[in-house]
Amino acid sequence: MYLGGIEAGGTKFVCAVGDGQGNVLAKERIATTDTETTLRGVISFFKNFEIDGLGIGSFGPVDLNQESPTYGYITSTPKSGWANYPFVKTMEDELHVPVGLTTDVNAAALGELYNGAAKGLDGCLYITVGTGVGAGLVSQKRLLQGLLHPEMGHILLRRHPDDDFEGICPYHQDCLEGLASGPALEARWGRAAADLPKDHKAWKIEAEYLAQALMQYVLIVSPQRIIMGGGVMKQTQLFPPIRKRLQELLAGYIDLSEVKEKIDGYIVSPLLGDNAGITGALILAKRVAEGH
Amino acid sequence: MYLGGIEAGGTKFVCAVGDGQGNVLAKERIATTDTETTLRGVISFFKNFEIDGLGIGSFGPVDLNQESPTYGYITSTPKSGWANYPFVKTMEDELHVPVGLTTDVNAAALGELYNGAAKGLDGCLYITVGTGVGAGLVSQKRLLQGLLHPEMGHILLRRHPDDDFEGICPYHQDCLEGLASGPALEARWGRAAADLPKDHKAWKIEAEYLAQALMQYVLIVSPQRIIMGGGVMKQTQLFPPIRKRLQELLAGYIDLSEVKEKIDGYIVSPLLGDNAGITGALILAKRVAEGH
Ligand SMILES: Nc1ncnc2c1ncn2[C@@H]1O[C@H](COP(=O)(O)OP(=O)(O)O)[C@@H](O)[C@H]1O
Ligand SMILES: Nc1ncnc2c1ncn2[C@@H]1O[C@H](COP(=O)(O)OP(=O)(O)O)[C@@H](O)[C@H]1O
Ligand SMILES: [Zn+2]
Ligand SMILES: [Zn+2]
Repeated sequence: MYLGGIEAGGTKFVCAVGDGQGNVLAKERIATTDTETTLRGVISFFKNFEIDGLGIGSFGPVDLNQESPTYGYITSTPKSGWANYPFVKTMEDELHVPVGLTTDVNAAALGELYNGAAKGLDGCLYITVGTGVGAGLVSQKRLLQGLLHPEMGHILLRRHPDDDFEGICPYHQDCLEGLASGPALEARWGRAAADLPKDHKAWKIEAEYLAQALMQYVLIVSPQRIIMGGGVMKQTQLFPPIRKRLQELLAGYIDLSEVKEKIDGYIVSPLLGDNAGITGALILAKRVAEGH
Repeated sequence: MYLGGIEAGGTKFVCAVGDGQGNVLAKERIATTDTETTLRGVISFFKNFEIDGLGIGSFGPVDLNQESPTYGYITSTPKSGWANYPFVKTMEDELHVPVGLTTDVNAAALGELYNGAAKGLDGCLYITVGTGVGAGLVSQKRLLQGLLHPEMGHILLRRHPDDDFEGICPYHQDCLEGLASGPALEARWGRAAADLPKDHKAWKIEAEYLAQALMQYVLIVSPQRIIMGGGVMKQTQLFPPIRKRLQELLAGYIDLSEVKEKIDGYIVSPLLGDNAGITGALILAKRVAEGH
């Protein structure tokens, strides 16, 4: 069985063909330009193989509601030409295979669950703290899907007392993404997040905000494991204060060894790095090829 | 087919037998005292019928993790005699039928989904604002279950500028439950919540906190519909300001008619009232009797 996967990002599309056993047989990167040029490249890559299903982890927002007339569309992105684009239908029409679509972070969560940092579990939460903040959740092996896919990056936080930065979210100003994304750090401190010294007080404030976010996620969806990736989480000194602060905030309320004694194994880095998304896209392809 | 349902509460157990088509054939209330007396009554009620499955919506916390050695236990409740009680095993041993257990709010969510205010949908969020604050979620017809069942009542909020009350949650002080439950209102304003005039400023602050909570829930789990019950929500004047404030907080970010134009039908009262939990328990019984 051959399977196709796409990790569709704002700067590049990564396309891969897998054998259904976790091996990647071919891979190609295609720059994200206009829809026609980009997808011409994508389609001609996949036409070299007889794939049985295609899985896509895409930048968004995407409409994942199967009942909706715009199911499978990229909806309101500011990325020129891609708004209201019928991504799934285009791929189905060209490749004549079942197509599964999810968000980039959902695909990463699937990838880490089956082949990465949450292997062997039933579910996990994958958070990216990068240009934006977003998260995907797998619970009981299924991607959480409501009216919309989760938009966990825009939750409300309590302000750190030392932080009077107004925030950069165009919708909410000082939501999580508005305060804690890479661009927010840069706007707040006047230099790229990567250039802030490890002992800069930025990281104390950042850890507070990320711990608050995890508190909400733990109470609301109770993930089996939490995987934190994205550019900002390359600052691995963030992990110990995030874990400690989460424990303080929960204050013993969640009576689980995962949160109490074994938190180092509960809040972790991705294992697959940049491959999480494409790995998850191939898993999704297998699911649609097998009809579920 | 006969099915048994229990709504297990801190003051009473409601037991019912249904015919699997939504009709209740018999019902009994049993006071919650010690485990032995209470369950002797429950068991002898069900022994009058040849039931094929039992569903329970219980006060908690309960261990719903099927892999756990204490699966089916009521765990750390302060209710004397009930902590570490093997509820599911006791009922299986006595009644010799498959037993399904979930939380009281999860059962209410199931009931409202199949027979109440969310009928015809794929999922819903049921929130109770009463002695405590809790919520249950059904998504794609399934109860959300992670490491634990959701504990959505203890999320963090931003303080309303006019509120300097310290909060009453023994764990978190001013979490949602600590600020917005019935007892919190009573402690904050010096009289029972039911006795506060409809134009008291308590309700403005209450609506703010509940709208903030809904914002987090909408962003994190994107419910198909939100049903708000419990004693405090009898103050139906809360609904319009909650809806309005939620829209303000979301600030157009969630581009859905449910949230934008049709919010009156999105955030609603329960339809089943006090019967939501027992209705859901009977639905759960049907699921376990049919083996899923
Ligand atoms: N080593 C680093 N330390 C802190 N921030 C970083 C680091 N590397 C990248 N970033 C920040 O992460 C953001 C990019 O996130 P990334 O996850 O790499 O990509 P994207 O979110 O666009 O997919 C940028 O805002 C950048 O400032
Ligand atoms: N009409 C009312 N208006 C406001 N608060 C009420 C009203 N009725 C009950 N409450 C409050 O709701 C709480 C009881 O919640 P309820 O949902 O009835 O029960 P429980 O949560 O114990 O199952 C009490 O704290 C009470 O003050
Ligand atoms: Zn925002
Ligand atoms: Zn609390």
